[in-house]
Amino acid sequence: MTAPFSSLSDFRRVLADLPAPDAEARAGAEARNGQLTKPPGALGRLEEVAIWMAGWQGTARPAVERPQVVIFAGNHGVTARGVSAFPAEVTVQMVANFQAGGAAINQLARAFGARMDVHALELDRPTADFTAGPAMTEAEVVAALRLGWEAVDPTADLLVTGEMGIGNTTAAAAIAAALFGGAPGDWTGRGTGVDDRGLAIKTQVVAEGLTRHAAVLDDPLEVLRCLGGRELAAMAGAIARARALRIPVILDGFICTAAAAVLERARPGALDHALAGHVSAEGAHPRLLAALGKRPLLDLGLRLGEGSGAALAIGVVKGAVACHSGMATFAEAGVSEG
Amino acid sequence: MTAPFSSLSDFRRVLADLPAPDAEARAGAEARNGQLTKPPGALGRLEEVAIWMAGWQGTARPAVERPQVVIFAGNHGVTARGVSAFPAEVTVQMVANFQAGGAAINQLARAFGARMDVHALELDRPTADFTAGPAMTEAEVVAALRLGWEAVDPTADLLVTGEMGIGNTTAAAAIAAALFGGAPGDWTGRGTGVDDRGLAIKTQVVAEGLTRHAAVLDDPLEVLRCLGGRELAAMAGAIARARALRIPVILDGFICTAAAAVLERARPGALDHALAGHVSAEGAHPRLLAALGKRPLLDLGLRLGEGSGAALAIGVVKGAVACHSGMATFAEAGVSEG
Repeated sequence: MTAPFSSLSDFRRVLADLPAPDAEARAGAEARNGQLTKPPGALGRLEEVAIWMAGWQGTARPAVERPQVVIFAGNHGVTARGVSAFPAEVTVQMVANFQAGGAAINQLARAFGARMDVHALELDRPTADFTAGPAMTEAEVVAALRLGWEAVDPTADLLVTGEMGIGNTTAAAAIAAALFGGAPGDWTGRGTGVDDRGLAIKTQVVAEGLTRHAAVLDDPLEVLRCLGGRELAAMAGAIARARALRIPVILDGFICTAAAAVLERARPGALDHALAGHVSAEGAHPRLLAALGKRPLLDLGLRLGEGSGAALAIGVVKGAVACHSGMATFAEAGVSEG
Repeated sequence: MTAPFSSLSDFRRVLADLPAPDAEARAGAEARNGQLTKPPGALGRLEEVAIWMAGWQGTARPAVERPQVVIFAGNHGVTARGVSAFPAEVTVQMVANFQAGGAAINQLARAFGARMDVHALELDRPTADFTAGPAMTEAEVVAALRLGWEAVDPTADLLVTGEMGIGNTTAAAAIAAALFGGAPGDWTGRGTGVDDRGLAIKTQVVAEGLTRHAAVLDDPLEVLRCLGGRELAAMAGAIARARALRIPVILDGFICTAAAAVLERARPGALDHALAGHVSAEGAHPRLLAALGKRPLLDLGLRLGEGSGAALAIGVVKGAVACHSGMATFAEAGVSEG
């Protein structure tokens, strides 16, 4: 489906009109959960995940049969400032690796039965260095939002968005600082592995970006345009589309969560259809999840991006819906209740 | 294979002669891990899990293609003391539920592609009330250890042991207190959901058991015999067999971990082939894992038993080995290193 917006103001209207979960399906799932052959609450967070899935999928028996992982890649002008431990050409090299099936996310998508799509966004035309001016024009950010919107498979029953883009933890840190305040250093981490000097440069670059774009920091979509990147905008577009379709989303790490946070700040509640797949080892991810009120499913020290932590969490969500939708009730199994 | 022991002293000899992991395979996996297309350490605990799997499976490229979930069920004389929120007949009813495919573990085993076997151990002959005498004779505990040993599929590449047995958190608490010391209340939790009065009874029953069997508390296998149950002994037998075969094991919750702890206390290092799949919401599980030096993969508030938390962790282990064994190296993918 062609995206129903061609400007940021159109996209604001899309965000103003997001669907709610299906209250009846959710209530049905809650009732069913209470009848399954287990002590009350014994499946812990699996129970809440299954009930949440029921609301978004609109059925008391949710399923994960067609998960989609969609990866967006972009390049960043700020890499010229020396913010990454890897050279910028790694972005296009890793896209080739995704296409050839050699990256971590390929293995995880396959392991959990997910379709995987990869979109490279104008890698030979990096965004502008945000310390010198806006990272993107309105036309550029809207094009990326539209690409993300259109990348979602409407038949998917669960969505993971991932990213690749040398320099993009710097963009994500700038976005997070702009959206939630605090010192630039609170939001800046080591990304792919910068040393102390690299971390100091990143923090300085984030601070310069916040100063340069001080006039727009109260407008989340302008924050995305001025400090973000194409792959971040595409993730935001995909997550918004999933909401329009009531497809539940698993958020990945710091960069994905920063892109998603733009939606939440632009329209409170915009991420109600999204859960945090994991908390990453990238320094500020716990802080960002806390700011969004999201409690992660997994905490395994991942800091790779690519959607990898969220893809791993597909397994947890699959387990949750498998139990909920497949278990016998006390009555069906002839088991005595406590 | 018929178990190579027919007495507890035979079993002690088995424990004295456990194999170590394959150091060469482990070193090969470590070397490979350093060449994969990701920043060093970016897959966090998935990397350590994959390398650990490599050592036990004896190959630098481990796999999870034939996981086995084996469930043991037993009944407990201490239920007469009112230690459970559910009546004792639920054990046999839940075994029927496992056999019909209606329990949580059935759904999880299916979701993660595991073979599942169920063994009911003389449900019509509960163990003796351990406050009055030993729970089992030597013949009984050896029979259960043997049954567990023989229940492992030698072609499995990953093992989960689970249990069902109304009253068995009481047995597990008594075992944990016997093995690691501390007050009975430190090890006693709400199980399937006893109220404050039930919890006080459980704690009292555990204290009585420890007093009754004070003379054997320094002998872990006698602790298993006097305070345990058939399904706990069977899990210990299965975990020991897996070690003999160098099959890696994922431990489940409090009861499974207590059974496993008997092996570790009888023979330090006996659980080197086992990782903690999750930390459960049963009160003393974090304490028990800490006593064993095991850090859980998942923390999702489960407290069901049946092997459910460990089965969910199969997904994490599958993801870990899929990445490790399937990813391209920097050289293969033509990706620049940092």
